[in-house]
Amino acid sequence: MSLQFVTSQSNSVCKQIISLQQRKNRKATGLFVLEGVRGVKDALDAGWVPDLFVVSDHFLNQSDDDDTITDMLQLNVSGYQVPDGLMKKLAETETPQGLLAVFSQPVHEVETIIQQVKGFWLVLDRIQDPGNLGTLIRSAEAAGVSGVFLTKGSTDPYNSKALRAATGAVLHLPVIELSTEESDCQFLLDANVHLVAAALEQGRSYAKIPYQLPLALVIGNEANGIDQSLLNKMETRVTIPMRGQLQSLNAAIAGSILMFHIAESIGCSKR
Amino acid sequence: MSLQFVTSQSNSVCKQIISLQQRKNRKATGLFVLEGVRGVKDALDAGWVPDLFVVSDHFLNQSDDDDTITDMLQLNVSGYQVPDGLMKKLAETETPQGLLAVFSQPVHEVETIIQQVKGFWLVLDRIQDPGNLGTLIRSAEAAGVSGVFLTKGSTDPYNSKALRAATGAVLHLPVIELSTEESDCQFLLDANVHLVAAALEQGRSYAKIPYQLPLALVIGNEANGIDQSLLNKMETRVTIPMRGQLQSLNAAIAGSILMFHIAESIGCSKR
Repeated sequence: MSLQFVTSQSNSVCKQIISLQQRKNRKATGLFVLEGVRGVKDALDAGWVPDLFVVSDHFLNQSDDDDTITDMLQLNVSGYQVPDGLMKKLAETETPQGLLAVFSQPVHEVETIIQQVKGFWLVLDRIQDPGNLGTLIRSAEAAGVSGVFLTKGSTDPYNSKALRAATGAVLHLPVIELSTEESDCQFLLDANVHLVAAALEQGRSYAKIPYQLPLALVIGNEANGIDQSLLNKMETRVTIPMRGQLQSLNAAIAGSILMFHIAESIGCSKR
Repeated sequence: MSLQFVTSQSNSVCKQIISLQQRKNRKATGLFVLEGVRGVKDALDAGWVPDLFVVSDHFLNQSDDDDTITDMLQLNVSGYQVPDGLMKKLAETETPQGLLAVFSQPVHEVETIIQQVKGFWLVLDRIQDPGNLGTLIRSAEAAGVSGVFLTKGSTDPYNSKALRAATGAVLHLPVIELSTEESDCQFLLDANVHLVAAALEQGRSYAKIPYQLPLALVIGNEANGIDQSLLNKMETRVTIPMRGQLQSLNAAIAGSILMFHIAESIGCSKR
């Protein structure tokens, strides 16, 4: 296969990509856009094949890395070449690298995920900042977490900023958006999973307590913490001691400190 | 004192504030701009008095929090009221709250800082992203670190994004920009401070080794890690085990995990 030239924003491929900048359209189609050569290459290496890809004139002329494009063409992925100006409209990064690809969102079932033997999960309760969400997913993947559950009201993990912060983790680790009914996490309690709440106060110092699997660490919304009715269900609250004048850590930092401490503490192995 | 009305961008106060959006002007004057009512309030609570402050019409009409303004006027700080449109030019946040203040940068001497008995420092080697830099300073403050050293080539801690991510930590914790000569950190070795490098590879697992004070944890540049000549001077390299498919963590996350682990490990007390 070879690249097809597209020069107009009203082309159907361009219209599709621009429509995927909106969450409702990502939701309706089950698709998302991954930008940048590193992200696309990692996805291919992990066995994901995009529906299509778009490359800019500049990228084709300048980049040393055209293996990625050759690989996709050999996989019979439809490829489109666009002028740099049009790429700027398709991409959401301020200075696009000139390569993006449309992938299907991985589909995971809650039931399958919680039957995994290892049993170390992360629940993110209405995290709002895409950078925080992506960073937490990246850290979860690196800490050896088995899966991430997002309660209703969380920001979209397939948002371009979240994807960038996650550096591809969403393709390696199950990330599941819970329905309104599932967002009370009763399915975890029913599976005898111990829920550990990260709390700003009234918790035990995180490094002083034993952890046992199966376990789900719950991180709350940046401004309001964990939803009160969810918090009421949890047996254990842990707090990170603040040794200075500040009252709190960034949510992604706090979650990552706790995940890595728990991973060390339970002797979590490589996934 | 009462507020003075300013309506033109060519007013000398407005010109000064806009000039402070550039690093060279912050450096030349030793001043910086703090935006937002929370940041300014925290600074006042910590005993810092601004040179001047600016408030928008909207802020004065809408905000419940006018204690901060009253407090500053009682301290004889010059206050200026500007139209909302002008505030948007003065502020660097996309949707400014409508309050900003000009403060002097805290001045710290390397010699004074390293004579502190406790001896737990953070060295940031050419961190480029203002969000990462600010987040690392926030985490350092919360971990009980005694001071942060920035090598030559680091981004400016008084950049508006860095200040926002640091949530005021820069006013509670000494943050020192090292000169070119000081950036080899020889002054730490001369003071018998143990340098611990955060390395992506070839390091010992961070949770498996003992830590002893005085100690400085060194975090390297996001893309290139720690400068090779600085790295060659260090006795200890630590690595955070990656338990998934990804190769690395975000620099602010990695640094924070290490700082909190070391703080727990050495029994670091509240500052």
